Amino acid sequence: MFPKKAVQSLIGNKVQIEMKGDNAVLEGVLKSVDDYMNIHLENTVEIVNGERKRVLGSVVLRGNNIIIINPV
Amino acid sequence: MFPKKAVQSLIGNKVQIEMKGDNAVLEGVLKSVDDYMNIHLENTVEIVNGERKRVLGSVVLRGNNIIIINPV
Amino acid sequence: MFPKKAVQSLIGNKVQIEMKGDNAVLEGVLKSVDDYMNIHLENTVEIVNGERKRVLGSVVLRGNNIIIINPV
Amino acid sequence: MFPKKAVQSLIGNKVQIEMKGDNAVLEGVLKSVDDYMNIHLENTVEIVNGERKRVLGSVVLRGNNIIIINPV
Amino acid sequence: MFPKKAVQSLIGNKVQIEMKGDNAVLEGVLKSVDDYMNIHLENTVEIVNGERKRVLGSVVLRGNNIIIINPV
Amino acid sequence: MFPKKAVQSLIGNKVQIEMKGDNAVLEGVLKSVDDYMNIHLENTVEIVNGERKRVLGSVVLRGNNIIIINPV
Repeated sequence: MFPKKAVQSLIGNKVQIEMKGDNAVLEGVLKSVDDYMNIHLENTVEIVNGERKRVLGSVVLRGNNIIIINPV
Repeated sequence: MFPKKAVQSLIGNKVQIEMKGDNAVLEGVLKSVDDYMNIHLENTVEIVNGERKRVLGSVVLRGNNIIIINPV
Repeated sequence: MFPKKAVQSLIGNKVQIEMKGDNAVLEGVLKSVDDYMNIHLENTVEIVNGERKRVLGSVVLRGNNIIIINPV
Repeated sequence: MFPKKAVQSLIGNKVQIEMKGDNAVLEGVLKSVDDYMNIHLENTVEIVNGERKRVLGSVVLRGNNIIIINPV
Repeated sequence: MFPKKAVQSLIGNKVQIEMKGDNAVLEGVLKSVDDYMNIHLENTVEIVNGERKRVLGSVVLRGNNIIIINPV
Repeated sequence: MFPKKAVQSLIGNKVQIEMKGDNAVLEGVLKSVDDYMNIHLENTVEIVNGERKRVLGSVVLRGNNIIIINPV
């Protein structure tokens, strides 16, 4: 399964995403992903050192600044 | 809804944008966005640690340096 | 007005540009901009903490390392 | 052998990958890689200063944030 | 004059280039530049805090990591 | 000679490569390079502050994270 398919297979599921230039990990429900790995998350929370820091709700993440995506 | 559509749906609304290489969060009214997620914001203010730091007015943000976009 | 058009509308005017990986803000007259937001500035000065630090004159900035462009 | 072929030749093998903006090295089994060097790893563990820090399992890594890939 | 033309016009001249992720400024003679602003410099020296630190000779710089190019 | 040709001309030779987000310099024999400047190095060693730190052997480097390539 190609990397993009592996991400698409997670739609509807909770994922954690680490972004470049941001200490927080973002956790939310993967709503959509496009060819550039731009991502739409819902029910997003920011997690710093394992603790929920901020509720962000619906956010869009720029694909090229994603480091790692993993299912929770 | 694809990530880019999710951003386009915010045109005319107030958004917060976190940029790579910049400690501030930018808050402004989303005027336009293109395919690279380059963004034109108006009435932009820089927010550092939750406080308004500088009034920037009309600015253009380079898409590839956007980390996260969320509606306010 | 799309983000690139918003930048093109500033040609001939003084702009401030914040670059990734550079503490300084660059201020100069926008001579030209291309589709990648590569930028040619003239009469450029480096501004650090609100003070002119260095006179750079004519410079070219790589578009993908631009964070924010705003008219002065 | 071109760089991408060199990576493809590692599919099914254990690799270590250093990511930009992340102190950890990721070690896992290379499941797939695409033209952008986006990577799907399984049985992934995070290694910090030579010690296993976290078990991540199945992850997707964004290609443009990969610094170096080497077989273990 | 478009930004790329402005760089091409410097071929054969001494330029200073600031790179992302590198404290040094590189100074050398611009031998060639391509559409991505990848650059071939000769007689290159690394300059840190205004002092020559290392002689590098012939080097290639990746365009996307260039912040600023200016003629000396 | 265009920048990419300048790199191709180094195939089979020892080169030093500085990567973004990595304090080490990588030294190895250039096996191959593609259009994105992705690079395959063999007999690679990591050099930190002028000292060999780690033997890495065969590695692949993502082109967009290369800052500078120079022949040794």
